[in-house]
Amino acid sequence: MRYYPVHSGYPSYAEVNRAIEAVFAEHGRGNVQMPAKVYVTFVGDGDFRTMPAYLPALGLAGVKIVNVNPQNHARGLPTVMALTVIIDVETGAPEAVINATELTAIRTGAAGAVAARYLAPRQTVTLGVVGAGRQAAALLEAMDAALEVTEVLVWSRTEKSAEAFAAQYADYNARSVSLEHACDCDILTTSTPSREPLVMAEWIHEGTHINAIGADAPGKQELDPALLLKAEVFVDDRCQAIHSGEINVPITTGRYDPARIAGTLGEVVTGQKGRSSPGAITIFDSTGLAIQDLAIAALAIQNGDGYELPFP
Amino acid sequence: MRYYPVHSGYPSYAEVNRAIEAVFAEHGRGNVQMPAKVYVTFVGDGDFRTMPAYLPALGLAGVKIVNVNPQNHARGLPTVMALTVIIDVETGAPEAVINATELTAIRTGAAGAVAARYLAPRQTVTLGVVGAGRQAAALLEAMDAALEVTEVLVWSRTEKSAEAFAAQYADYNARSVSLEHACDCDILTTSTPSREPLVMAEWIHEGTHINAIGADAPGKQELDPALLLKAEVFVDDRCQAIHSGEINVPITTGRYDPARIAGTLGEVVTGQKGRSSPGAITIFDSTGLAIQDLAIAALAIQNGDGYELPFP
Repeated sequence: MRYYPVHSGYPSYAEVNRAIEAVFAEHGRGNVQMPAKVYVTFVGDGDFRTMPAYLPALGLAGVKIVNVNPQNHARGLPTVMALTVIIDVETGAPEAVINATELTAIRTGAAGAVAARYLAPRQTVTLGVVGAGRQAAALLEAMDAALEVTEVLVWSRTEKSAEAFAAQYADYNARSVSLEHACDCDILTTSTPSREPLVMAEWIHEGTHINAIGADAPGKQELDPALLLKAEVFVDDRCQAIHSGEINVPITTGRYDPARIAGTLGEVVTGQKGRSSPGAITIFDSTGLAIQDLAIAALAIQNGDGYELPFP
Repeated sequence: MRYYPVHSGYPSYAEVNRAIEAVFAEHGRGNVQMPAKVYVTFVGDGDFRTMPAYLPALGLAGVKIVNVNPQNHARGLPTVMALTVIIDVETGAPEAVINATELTAIRTGAAGAVAARYLAPRQTVTLGVVGAGRQAAALLEAMDAALEVTEVLVWSRTEKSAEAFAAQYADYNARSVSLEHACDCDILTTSTPSREPLVMAEWIHEGTHINAIGADAPGKQELDPALLLKAEVFVDDRCQAIHSGEINVPITTGRYDPARIAGTLGEVVTGQKGRSSPGAITIFDSTGLAIQDLAIAALAIQNGDGYELPFP
């Protein structure tokens, strides 16, 4: 068994996007075992989630364990920290333990890039960015490996964060703008911890593709429910999205009917589903799948050195 | 984050039995979070199981990942291999990764010892042992730390295994006997991978306590369903036992009604439930709980050295 700290030498986004697309294709073909994510909630702040999966065609199995604790920032720790255990599909032995903290942001960015490449009506794009944290950066970099990004319009609740983000991505003509202005784009990505809609339906024009990334637990939402009703909503996984994705609150309040879901990203990349017309508004509702964690863990193992640990 | 290979210096059974009793008490007080064990089944042989839990009063959280593969023996690998990840309850950070292969057998043995101490009608006992594998040895050793074992009657499908077991435990007057003879005891422990009843109702006399350990997945069973009907059945966890314990097959076939369950081991150790009379036959139906894995992992961390691993 080896431990991979993955502190340097991340795989390139071109590689990651390919690997993530491949596991979504397996998902679209119905060829994965992925039990529902299991949540354990601390009496204090935060929770941790256990995410097992198995991809028979890729010979890949394992579990990601990931926590979310909004108080960690004040402690100088990441809000999200993660570990992936890879299991040998022949013997069941744990064969690798991987620091998946950074990989979690990267694989989530890659899912947004795959969704955008298939669902956006054009491949040269202005990118709107709502939320300017680590996930927003990963989304931009992954997108850049999949499409031509000519301009970036960034909004954050904290203006300073938006300006720092704009400065970091000056090469992409990034600038800090109002929330409404950020929505005037070809592809909008939202990655905030919001529990109230931020993006209003009337701000989104025809043909926009939205990557709704922030909502990954019951009670979270970033988009006006009216926007979901006028859009074609694609999810990463039906069960997870209904439970904890962008659509979870509107479903609970009766404003969105899960029967309206237009398809899954796996169905999109395998050509079974897609946007209905160039003018449609499409939304990718991403909750984050264990199969994405297995895909990027496999890349990290290929690229990394790791430490040998005695086992069993 | 530290890695504990746990290759030597196992905690003593006296310590383990105490720690296991403490977590069953928390379970009996309804003070644990323990989502259902999640199974992933390989296309080839075997499966792996993901077992998260959280004990707020003990400040202990984590996940065990454990596989079962009957073909591993032929490969020179353990049938069961396991890894436990301990999560810091304040920050959610993974703080330890523990080789739990041997600890899994030990904590299971300890649960049998705790059950026997509370449910057996006497504390000086003849022990019947059905199945002579690693688990049977752990059960005997744990029991020896809780009760006075004066004689051991062992049966195994392979006579050679039974004789080797008897030789190993000659100090306990262990001898290899017929299956029916092994059942003529004060405490019977069964730990085979059987899918057919081995122990017949008419072989078990009044006042016997049985630790039914082998059945831990749907389809497995070791006891005659008629024996369940004339006994008082205590389970480790209602949901897990109904799904995958000794009672799972008789429930599926309609021969056992889950309403008959006499209580949980947690309810027994907290004094809420117990055997009804000295003559009753009691059964402890053990499936193995994630809280047991957390308890023994905490002991292994206290006792062990471990390697420092860079994280996050």
